[in-house]
Amino acid sequence: MADPRFFSVQGPFSLGQVIEITGAVCATPNADLSQSFNDVKPLEAAGPDDVAFLENRKYVEAFQKTKAGAVFVPDSLVERTPEGVIALVAARPRRAFVTLAQAFYPRDWPEAGIDPSAQIDPTAQIGEGCTIGPNVVIGPRAEIADKVWIGAGTVIDTGSIIGEGTSIGPNCYIGFTIMGARCQIQTGAQIGRQGFGFERDDAGPLHLPHIGRVIIGNSVEVGCNTTIDRGNSGDTSIGDGTMIDNLVMIAHNVTIGKGCTMVAQSGIAGSSKLGDYCIVAGQVGIANHVTIGDRVILAGKSGVAADIPSGAIMGGTPAIPINEWRRMVARQRVEARAARKK
Amino acid sequence: MADPRFFSVQGPFSLGQVIEITGAVCATPNADLSQSFNDVKPLEAAGPDDVAFLENRKYVEAFQKTKAGAVFVPDSLVERTPEGVIALVAARPRRAFVTLAQAFYPRDWPEAGIDPSAQIDPTAQIGEGCTIGPNVVIGPRAEIADKVWIGAGTVIDTGSIIGEGTSIGPNCYIGFTIMGARCQIQTGAQIGRQGFGFERDDAGPLHLPHIGRVIIGNSVEVGCNTTIDRGNSGDTSIGDGTMIDNLVMIAHNVTIGKGCTMVAQSGIAGSSKLGDYCIVAGQVGIANHVTIGDRVILAGKSGVAADIPSGAIMGGTPAIPINEWRRMVARQRVEARAARKK
Amino acid sequence: MADPRFFSVQGPFSLGQVIEITGAVCATPNADLSQSFNDVKPLEAAGPDDVAFLENRKYVEAFQKTKAGAVFVPDSLVERTPEGVIALVAARPRRAFVTLAQAFYPRDWPEAGIDPSAQIDPTAQIGEGCTIGPNVVIGPRAEIADKVWIGAGTVIDTGSIIGEGTSIGPNCYIGFTIMGARCQIQTGAQIGRQGFGFERDDAGPLHLPHIGRVIIGNSVEVGCNTTIDRGNSGDTSIGDGTMIDNLVMIAHNVTIGKGCTMVAQSGIAGSSKLGDYCIVAGQVGIANHVTIGDRVILAGKSGVAADIPSGAIMGGTPAIPINEWRRMVARQRVEARAARKK
Repeated sequence: MADPRFFSVQGPFSLGQVIEITGAVCATPNADLSQSFNDVKPLEAAGPDDVAFLENRKYVEAFQKTKAGAVFVPDSLVERTPEGVIALVAARPRRAFVTLAQAFYPRDWPEAGIDPSAQIDPTAQIGEGCTIGPNVVIGPRAEIADKVWIGAGTVIDTGSIIGEGTSIGPNCYIGFTIMGARCQIQTGAQIGRQGFGFERDDAGPLHLPHIGRVIIGNSVEVGCNTTIDRGNSGDTSIGDGTMIDNLVMIAHNVTIGKGCTMVAQSGIAGSSKLGDYCIVAGQVGIANHVTIGDRVILAGKSGVAADIPSGAIMGGTPAIPINEWRRMVARQRVEARAARKK
Repeated sequence: MADPRFFSVQGPFSLGQVIEITGAVCATPNADLSQSFNDVKPLEAAGPDDVAFLENRKYVEAFQKTKAGAVFVPDSLVERTPEGVIALVAARPRRAFVTLAQAFYPRDWPEAGIDPSAQIDPTAQIGEGCTIGPNVVIGPRAEIADKVWIGAGTVIDTGSIIGEGTSIGPNCYIGFTIMGARCQIQTGAQIGRQGFGFERDDAGPLHLPHIGRVIIGNSVEVGCNTTIDRGNSGDTSIGDGTMIDNLVMIAHNVTIGKGCTMVAQSGIAGSSKLGDYCIVAGQVGIANHVTIGDRVILAGKSGVAADIPSGAIMGGTPAIPINEWRRMVARQRVEARAARKK
Repeated sequence: MADPRFFSVQGPFSLGQVIEITGAVCATPNADLSQSFNDVKPLEAAGPDDVAFLENRKYVEAFQKTKAGAVFVPDSLVERTPEGVIALVAARPRRAFVTLAQAFYPRDWPEAGIDPSAQIDPTAQIGEGCTIGPNVVIGPRAEIADKVWIGAGTVIDTGSIIGEGTSIGPNCYIGFTIMGARCQIQTGAQIGRQGFGFERDDAGPLHLPHIGRVIIGNSVEVGCNTTIDRGNSGDTSIGDGTMIDNLVMIAHNVTIGKGCTMVAQSGIAGSSKLGDYCIVAGQVGIANHVTIGDRVILAGKSGVAADIPSGAIMGGTPAIPINEWRRMVARQRVEARAARKK
């Protein structure tokens, strides 16, 4: 169970409530809808008062040994349910589990209010039900919608717009940015500084004024200490539902579609485009002026310097189709060993 | 045109003023020096009231279709100027464009003053015309020159020196540092913590006291969330006009020359030396105790563990001359495909 | 000598005190135990009033030319001591040097006290002798032990526990964390945000509630702008004496043993395990659900996607035994050159 120092669990929920919350279908005949559940847990850790889930066939063995009171399962595995466990059929069992977990552990929304130490410009607009933490600075003409949460020490610079229900962690910077609703910006993220663009001559560097913006859709996550630069002319833009992990770099004038995932320490250089529903694994680098299609998957640490069509799965540096890359590295290794034996 | 929420455009400027500001030479006979221009834009987006530029021969086609009122061009391409466009000849057209862009969009310097919530030690010296934001902390004996801008929540630690006209974004840390004039330190940069040096024994790690400093020249840029450690004995130093992007790591006792560029997520380990005018691309890693000459270029994601002479262009891990690396990876790929067909 | 702007040197110490502080044995007959020393310096920079050290045979030449008054040396090299230099025999000369350096440059602990601008929840507990900087925010039920140092603008979130003598730099976030004694958390570190875990469907991402914690042992270092996510269920944990450099990413549910070193810009993905006394070099990436044994060494930039047994030394992506990797890349290069000459 979650440490009560940090988390307060809701519930208990009856089996009937679990079904109502998740939309799962009870496949166990004569199950008692009033049976009570106290928590969600993994298969191995769950007891009779907990709900678990099975999604991957790989874990059928753990399923058959589980002591969980009820388990979300796919239709295809329901006949493997062990004695005494209630089977709750769901098309996507992990999703049902996450939905129930959200009911047990609702997002801990501190009491609404504006800390007296926050400095809010008189021309800024603040919606209803916002929480604005200590030492927050909100600049002129910024617009903060309803139910926005802003953590201590964060700066919302002149004119920026933050959509309804978005939360922004402590010690972030948000400038030159128009951000949608229900985003989660984690601690230390830096969004909207001028991009890295300049001319050089003997007198030193000459900075290109960056007069673009950052446009962020709805339900976007930006991880801790991630940086997103604004466009030089035109915008840097990130589509709805895109999830960005920690320590990611998104350069000026980059366009990222909707539903993408960028894992920690990946980076995408100036003016490159990423389509919809792409997955960029950890420590991947994408060079500038590259166009990547939809539903592309880039394996961890790959390096991309050329356009990639939709649907491709790529690996290596320079990135090539993943199967080709796997064969290539396997072959190199075999050859090196063979050469050694000669 | 730039979003007026965030940017206020200056001007308009007459053709005569454009020429005066940039030093370009008008190659269009009988051009009207009083013709008025409202903005700078790329070739494709510019209209009759805008100024654009052409530097790369690759974009001649866009040049010939442009609706821009005037375009900066190199002498070699001036005869390709389309009808109705004023040709402004410049040795470096992009530079002329950036210079004009700076006139249209001067750096937005908020009104000078010290926010009452800033905590400035009475022994610190603050120059004239400085802007010191909310919740800034300036330690004992720090020296802040004239016209320095310091964003909210930034800490300038004991004794550090900041040169004239330098700007430091919000939520930075600057300690044990002597920094020159006209630098731009972006949000969340951490400069001057002790380096990563220790001894171990059974009782645990023993920290080496780091009694060196960080010495930063003039016109240096340090990107968002970049970290620069101070020397253990002796200094970490960065030369004039060096530009450092976001999320870069510069370790203790590193020496970087003048006019270098370090792109995002690159890193250089303890005591290594980088000469003048080097370009270190994104996600490059340089091991410790390595010496790299002047005007060296390191391709994206390369890994350097040995000294590199001046003028070399390197790629791969371990880094080798770029042409050799390109041939090598091309050959590997061809061989892997051939092997597959057998 | 260290710049007195930033560092105040203690001492001088007599030869007798140097011996007492470090436990070294004087191998020079008739040395005057009252001889006075003012500082510690490298062999090349030291003068007659300084103490230096020789640990690596590679630097014997510098040793024989040194002007240092005394030098820590291993027993095996003591006969190489030049005329006029006092030889101080130590099993680990660098360790003796670091110990003496700590005596000359004790950690600069600013005067204890709580800045009036700090916001400390009335239910938080603060130990004796703590230093709590400007604009620090400490949440409900947090427990701060004795002699803890917390820099300006840092947030200690609800319920977190910080052990005795730990120091936390400015502008950090610490939440959902139980941290041991004598840790050093550098500026801008972000510890305890929810991990990167979610489900997707047409309606967008669904966040998995992260109800785990971050558990950090004693004497752990966390570098600048490093991020450590809390577990989703179960904990992210880091063992005693583990040293983590700048810009490192540690994902949810990762387990790191004791005495490990993680160099800058390395990352370890969700649920992976690292044993004790491992060394993870710069820019290494470790995929999720990987188990790595004890005393494993991963060369710079290597990429790990499979389990590694204890004691292995690995390099490359995908990582293979380092000697095999070295031969492989050497052979590839030779072949590419040979092919070119044909």
